Amino acid sequence: MTARLYVGERVDYIIENELKIIQSSSVFTFSLDAVLLANFVHVPIKKGKLLDLCTGTGAIPLLLTRRTNGRITGIEIQEKLVSMAERSVELNQLENQINVIHANILDSERNAEQDYDVVTCNPPYFASQNPEDHHSNEHFAIARHEIHCTLDDVVRISAKHLRNGGKAAFVHRPERLMDLLTSMRKYNLEPKRLQLVHPKEGKEANMVLVEGAKNGKPDLKLLPPIVVFDQNGQYSEEVMQAYGR
Amino acid sequence: MTARLYVGERVDYIIENELKIIQSSSVFTFSLDAVLLANFVHVPIKKGKLLDLCTGTGAIPLLLTRRTNGRITGIEIQEKLVSMAERSVELNQLENQINVIHANILDSERNAEQDYDVVTCNPPYFASQNPEDHHSNEHFAIARHEIHCTLDDVVRISAKHLRNGGKAAFVHRPERLMDLLTSMRKYNLEPKRLQLVHPKEGKEANMVLVEGAKNGKPDLKLLPPIVVFDQNGQYSEEVMQAYGR
Repeated sequence: MTARLYVGERVDYIIENELKIIQSSSVFTFSLDAVLLANFVHVPIKKGKLLDLCTGTGAIPLLLTRRTNGRITGIEIQEKLVSMAERSVELNQLENQINVIHANILDSERNAEQDYDVVTCNPPYFASQNPEDHHSNEHFAIARHEIHCTLDDVVRISAKHLRNGGKAAFVHRPERLMDLLTSMRKYNLEPKRLQLVHPKEGKEANMVLVEGAKNGKPDLKLLPPIVVFDQNGQYSEEVMQAYGR
Repeated sequence: MTARLYVGERVDYIIENELKIIQSSSVFTFSLDAVLLANFVHVPIKKGKLLDLCTGTGAIPLLLTRRTNGRITGIEIQEKLVSMAERSVELNQLENQINVIHANILDSERNAEQDYDVVTCNPPYFASQNPEDHHSNEHFAIARHEIHCTLDDVVRISAKHLRNGGKAAFVHRPERLMDLLTSMRKYNLEPKRLQLVHPKEGKEANMVLVEGAKNGKPDLKLLPPIVVFDQNGQYSEEVMQAYGR
């Protein structure tokens, strides 16, 4: 199948020889964060309803199709990214499993039916008031900064969409972990699994994965860490596996 | 120097050929948790005031003397443990640096002068309402269960004793990490450093070290993990170092 591409866009493999993604280095490219989150979250295998907030080019829904036959919805505020995500879904012939919606996640809250089994989100990482982090590119800025929604919004909206006992999983930076955990408790998404991602052995974590259960009881498991690069500067086996190699 | 011992007590090295501790297997023995906490916490080197809550046989104050010349106070509710701690201080000739007080930490709160640079605590790990965890021995029960004070009490009291910017460090079990972090934020002890302790590579953490700063700004560092045993079932180099070997 050939891809329908606009100027500046390209087709990359997100999983080698298996899953393709349309992206654009001037608009948005997926990163390891999405790959690790899609690998980390607990998913129902045969059926179920999954939701990915701030889905961007749809990397997480695309990756989740390798682990579940459930129906996956992605919500994205930026039209250009929705278009890329929709064309990637076509390109991989996954129209029956993935549905991408062009919307602000704040608007999705009103009609939430509390029937999702899983919600994932790789949210904007940087507080919008931090000028030194601002990107000159508007698309990157929206994807990376809390311009249209805050971390607290993301957590509240995730909880709203979930059924009782449903799982929400997030990836974020260490410096926001306390805010993430605080918001999760506030909206009754009790943290159940936490995994730190270290760039190399002996280095501080630079990413963190957290999964909570709606109205779950306190009982946090602290998983073995992920180490991204081995001593030779190559991806570790674990990360290679997440990339399907 | 000879030790003054009561029936059932013995003298062990807490640090080989350097620091001795009087303990009793029928009353209380120190564990790796205390060693790792004393190694983890930030301390002023030349002077300062340090406080160890629920000090037991004084393992943490004894260990801290290797890292600081500051004055260290230990508070312990159980008279038998206070007596052992005091005799261990004598045995190591550390009377000028360590002072052990027989008191309930709840009573220490009223007169808190908010002048400590550092507070440490290896608190009782188990909620008192959990009958399956109850130990037949009263001394162990008090040291291990939240009979005389809760985790929330420990955190609140730690904050009360600290000067502005002072550090509080705790060791606890993963399943209580959320409660610990929640109480720390509640009492303005912002978590700044967190380190997971895994029994072996590839295993979930079974212990966690957290340090917070009184009235600190949010900015959490996630340190490289500690792995206790290597592939051969021996203490890892890192743990051997904490034991001064």
